[in-house]
Amino acid sequence: MDLKTFIRDIPDFPKTGILFKDITTLLKDSKAFKYSVDQFISYYIDKKIDYVAAVEARGYIMGGILAYNFNAGFVPIRKPGKLPYEVHSIEYTLEYGSNILEVHKDAINPGSRVLIFDDLIATGGSAFATAKLIEQLGGEVSGFAFIIELSELKGREKLKDYDVFSLIVY
Amino acid sequence: MDLKTFIRDIPDFPKTGILFKDITTLLKDSKAFKYSVDQFISYYIDKKIDYVAAVEARGYIMGGILAYNFNAGFVPIRKPGKLPYEVHSIEYTLEYGSNILEVHKDAINPGSRVLIFDDLIATGGSAFATAKLIEQLGGEVSGFAFIIELSELKGREKLKDYDVFSLIVY
Repeated sequence: MDLKTFIRDIPDFPKTGILFKDITTLLKDSKAFKYSVDQFISYYIDKKIDYVAAVEARGYIMGGILAYNFNAGFVPIRKPGKLPYEVHSIEYTLEYGSNILEVHKDAINPGSRVLIFDDLIATGGSAFATAKLIEQLGGEVSGFAFIIELSELKGREKLKDYDVFSLIVY
Repeated sequence: MDLKTFIRDIPDFPKTGILFKDITTLLKDSKAFKYSVDQFISYYIDKKIDYVAAVEARGYIMGGILAYNFNAGFVPIRKPGKLPYEVHSIEYTLEYGSNILEVHKDAINPGSRVLIFDDLIATGGSAFATAKLIEQLGGEVSGFAFIIELSELKGREKLKDYDVFSLIVY
């Protein structure tokens, strides 16, 4: 199945000059949606995943499905102030400015194997920050899974110490 | 399985006087997580669901799993400015102030059957607004599914014309 045909390009979103890759056109197609998830499941099913950690908000959609299918727990990675209990925070730099991500301090059992899921990898900043949060909790990052990889932005290089699986590469 | 034992009460979050029901302690427990999802699947599996519409962000986690298991498409309901394509918007009132939710204008095929999922129902304002968005698109609301229902707030009355399934009722 050619998944690129299900991705919609939106010019100048969210800012002028950015060509946004809209995945809602893939998600709404039940066959493309199922096919996409099944590729992730096939790739990671034998890796003994204890938790899937997913990045708010689009990462939750398929991240939850993977956790369910791996009989794993689910760990939400959120923007500041959204998680109600005690958190670890990490700040990471973007092209302009910086972002913060948080995880609950009791999100996983130390020594667990954690798959990190997000919808898209660009420079890899948020993915790398998420890995550091998981490792701070004593977890082992089993790998990363993304629907879309923007290869020009070299996020994969930032994650070179990890296993990375992307479904659609531009 | 007594799911209430997996929900953590957080006093004064996000504001003083509110007792927040934290579901992350349920999500991280792989058995409680799977058990919860399976209750939703059992309840709605025979209802011929074409799409699952879920409310950002916590609603995405199990909403995605249900869509996958029903061989349905997934429709994200988002806060203003997050969806990149043309949207329908709806404003609804809260105890103090109001909120807006949006859906893509091409999110579903007219005539489709749509299950609406969110993590929690309080007054039912966001759930009812989501139903109106789906109906504006020509969809038929097959029902609602929630992890937690705060029954004192009478959200179920606001949804009295629909099928409502809640996993944990306080």
